[in-house]
Amino acid sequence: MEAVLLVHGDREYVRHPGEELQTDLGVLDVPEDVSHGDELETHLGEPFVARRLRGPDLFEHFERTGAPMMPRDAGLVMGHTGAGGGDRVLDAGTGTGVLAAYLARAGAEVTTYETDPAFADVARENMILGGVDDRVDVRTGDVTEHLDELVGADSFDVLTLDTGDSAAVVERAPELLTTGGFVTVYSPFVESIRKTIEAAGGDLTDVRTFETIQRRMDVSERGTRPSTAGVGHTGYLTFARKE
Amino acid sequence: MEAVLLVHGDREYVRHPGEELQTDLGVLDVPEDVSHGDELETHLGEPFVARRLRGPDLFEHFERTGAPMMPRDAGLVMGHTGAGGGDRVLDAGTGTGVLAAYLARAGAEVTTYETDPAFADVARENMILGGVDDRVDVRTGDVTEHLDELVGADSFDVLTLDTGDSAAVVERAPELLTTGGFVTVYSPFVESIRKTIEAAGGDLTDVRTFETIQRRMDVSERGTRPSTAGVGHTGYLTFARKE
Amino acid sequence: MEAVLLVHGDREYVRHPGEELQTDLGVLDVPEDVSHGDELETHLGEPFVARRLRGPDLFEHFERTGAPMMPRDAGLVMGHTGAGGGDRVLDAGTGTGVLAAYLARAGAEVTTYETDPAFADVARENMILGGVDDRVDVRTGDVTEHLDELVGADSFDVLTLDTGDSAAVVERAPELLTTGGFVTVYSPFVESIRKTIEAAGGDLTDVRTFETIQRRMDVSERGTRPSTAGVGHTGYLTFARKE
Amino acid sequence: MEAVLLVHGDREYVRHPGEELQTDLGVLDVPEDVSHGDELETHLGEPFVARRLRGPDLFEHFERTGAPMMPRDAGLVMGHTGAGGGDRVLDAGTGTGVLAAYLARAGAEVTTYETDPAFADVARENMILGGVDDRVDVRTGDVTEHLDELVGADSFDVLTLDTGDSAAVVERAPELLTTGGFVTVYSPFVESIRKTIEAAGGDLTDVRTFETIQRRMDVSERGTRPSTAGVGHTGYLTFARKE
Repeated sequence: MEAVLLVHGDREYVRHPGEELQTDLGVLDVPEDVSHGDELETHLGEPFVARRLRGPDLFEHFERTGAPMMPRDAGLVMGHTGAGGGDRVLDAGTGTGVLAAYLARAGAEVTTYETDPAFADVARENMILGGVDDRVDVRTGDVTEHLDELVGADSFDVLTLDTGDSAAVVERAPELLTTGGFVTVYSPFVESIRKTIEAAGGDLTDVRTFETIQRRMDVSERGTRPSTAGVGHTGYLTFARKE
Repeated sequence: MEAVLLVHGDREYVRHPGEELQTDLGVLDVPEDVSHGDELETHLGEPFVARRLRGPDLFEHFERTGAPMMPRDAGLVMGHTGAGGGDRVLDAGTGTGVLAAYLARAGAEVTTYETDPAFADVARENMILGGVDDRVDVRTGDVTEHLDELVGADSFDVLTLDTGDSAAVVERAPELLTTGGFVTVYSPFVESIRKTIEAAGGDLTDVRTFETIQRRMDVSERGTRPSTAGVGHTGYLTFARKE
Repeated sequence: MEAVLLVHGDREYVRHPGEELQTDLGVLDVPEDVSHGDELETHLGEPFVARRLRGPDLFEHFERTGAPMMPRDAGLVMGHTGAGGGDRVLDAGTGTGVLAAYLARAGAEVTTYETDPAFADVARENMILGGVDDRVDVRTGDVTEHLDELVGADSFDVLTLDTGDSAAVVERAPELLTTGGFVTVYSPFVESIRKTIEAAGGDLTDVRTFETIQRRMDVSERGTRPSTAGVGHTGYLTFARKE
Repeated sequence: MEAVLLVHGDREYVRHPGEELQTDLGVLDVPEDVSHGDELETHLGEPFVARRLRGPDLFEHFERTGAPMMPRDAGLVMGHTGAGGGDRVLDAGTGTGVLAAYLARAGAEVTTYETDPAFADVARENMILGGVDDRVDVRTGDVTEHLDELVGADSFDVLTLDTGDSAAVVERAPELLTTGGFVTVYSPFVESIRKTIEAAGGDLTDVRTFETIQRRMDVSERGTRPSTAGVGHTGYLTFARKE
């Protein structure tokens, strides 16, 4: 069974059913049959509520092997591609696995490639923690070395790419994608936008790159205004579609 | 079976299996057993490819009863709340139904309220067209008049609100939501942000309002730059969570 | 004569000609006839270059009595109103005096009101430091209590307002301004935009409120991208013009 | 004497004193001694008000030889560099001359280079129209071919560059600028940012590139929100300073 979030005030811990939580608030044994919403107590009588991990919780609690994709960007990928139930998704590189987990929770079957074996192992653990290990196949390796076999298999509905050589996959996107399918490339830097677009060439349509600036609004007694803190850049998202 | 998108160059038509398409390219009978990717021909020999409707296609082809939520905003709701498989969502007002359809395609069971009976009828047709009529229950009525019965039922994982009186629902959100569940309010205007936040009061946590500015990047021979066309405001998204 | 900026590496000090600078690098007497570009030495032989204070230096070295207007916003006021040589400007409230100094350096004669006597004194010192005390008349008082006398005087070309009750001045703007003159209101909060616009009523034209988001671009070996640090909100600028 | 703006409702015409205005509202002779604020009448009795041309009016009424710099960007250049009274400015390329006129009106002496002889002629006429022909020296030619002589002359306080080969001037900026002086490069495209920054090298400090997104706010009965129309990109502004 997927992990649960144990919450006490501002404190949050992730444990699988059957596991033990040890903190200065005491020891808590998570029942095998824990349900979301259950109130549990440590041996010192301190209460914890068991919650289901939602998307943003995965972002917070997944073990990180780099800067994970932010919930807003995972959402934008789903919004602009419609990725969801019944879709077969090819993802690279896995990284922390936030996007793969979001897609799987939305019903997609995800095959994801991560070149770093240690990172891939962490991602596999994260998929178990997120309860989506049955729908995410984390493969250790460089996706560009496996394109021939992937092309040979059933086609994909969506490709989600976040690697240094995404362009090499984009070039093969027309072979990898089903008709009407989308490829998405996430890239922090402007320079890679051009490479992606050139790789999309004339074989893909609706090629569009978006930059998304998201700001918090501050609402106080004094008034309402955009945050003075500012919100920084994450990455550009380029989308293209197979006709 | 859900509708298919019939594509010929730039032209796109939506039809259900068994229906007929009449255009100047000829008449095309959509087979009952049409599969995505099938190439079909009109009686004049003009080819159409049958595609599965993806999220952005729903946005384009749903019959509109107002300005529908844009794919990016539907995605942001999913990203920031993690709404997806296994979730029970309470949505109001339905409008064109884009958000409800996105959520259902991501695996959620959606109950959505629309005050205008004619709009509700259109939304029901749109849910059939999107292949999600089994997971979206479009109810004609004002959600604020049904809160007592809704509170009495099993709790919801996510509330998605886009009505003039969203604040009235937000006030009841602690009763409607499961622990860790999210409420989202979409509002075009600044003034309603404050009402939402005040309604969230002290009973909900992580109250945050985001403004999202999305721009296209232009990539040409001359260079790369943000679009000179500009991208306009859609709406503010406020999120809050039940502890 | 106006003050000079004494620069040694990252260190900057402001002194008037004839004054003394004491630091751990030694004592330096600033000659009465110091010229911009002069290299001066402390008694320990440490070199300092004498620079003219430019606009951004005023922002850095003015004594602050609150958050001063940022150089970019002072520039936007000048850009959108064309305030400069030969203009008579009515400014309120003075605050640190950055905007008044910018306008005076661009050739305007500025009358500025500051309600706090201590702040007004600091502003006067800042105008001397900026070499514009002959073109900026810092008056202690509430501009709204002096409108009748101000209306009676020659009209103003530009009004620049940054106070809690700017709307009260905007209402009188048609009387205060010359034909074609501009009024500008700086306000951090959304709520005051509406008040300003309502005060502008039908008597002023070209009523426009701008929000300006400014971001730094990061250019590194890895690539070019908007800063991940983000740049926060400063204020909204509303402009209106007398027909 | 500088030109005046003749305003009748929404109609605006620019004429020099002594010139004639012919419209369907009748013929109007502009007196040699016209003053700002004067009400004039055509021979048909239609009234026109004579206004001083302000910065934004120059932007509207200058004859265009390309997309002129927008008032906001001219303002940002002045804000970030403090360019104004007493400054010597080297500008290239002149284009329509909006920036040169803004700087001159703020009290700067401007030397500006325009490679296209016809454009330079238009710019000269625009400077007369703006009443700044005595402070703006429009030279026909490529500034990069004149750097040696410019370096030999007195140094400049500010360099403002908006040409395809701005980087070649930036490389010589340390020789051209006085200590504490600024160089500014306006460039629509990302690619030129890097060239500018590399040219600034280690000899200039405070190298910063800004992108400025400006949006209008819509205030109506329904509420307040950023404009749905969007405001497009103009250009990146890179600033650097001589130590």
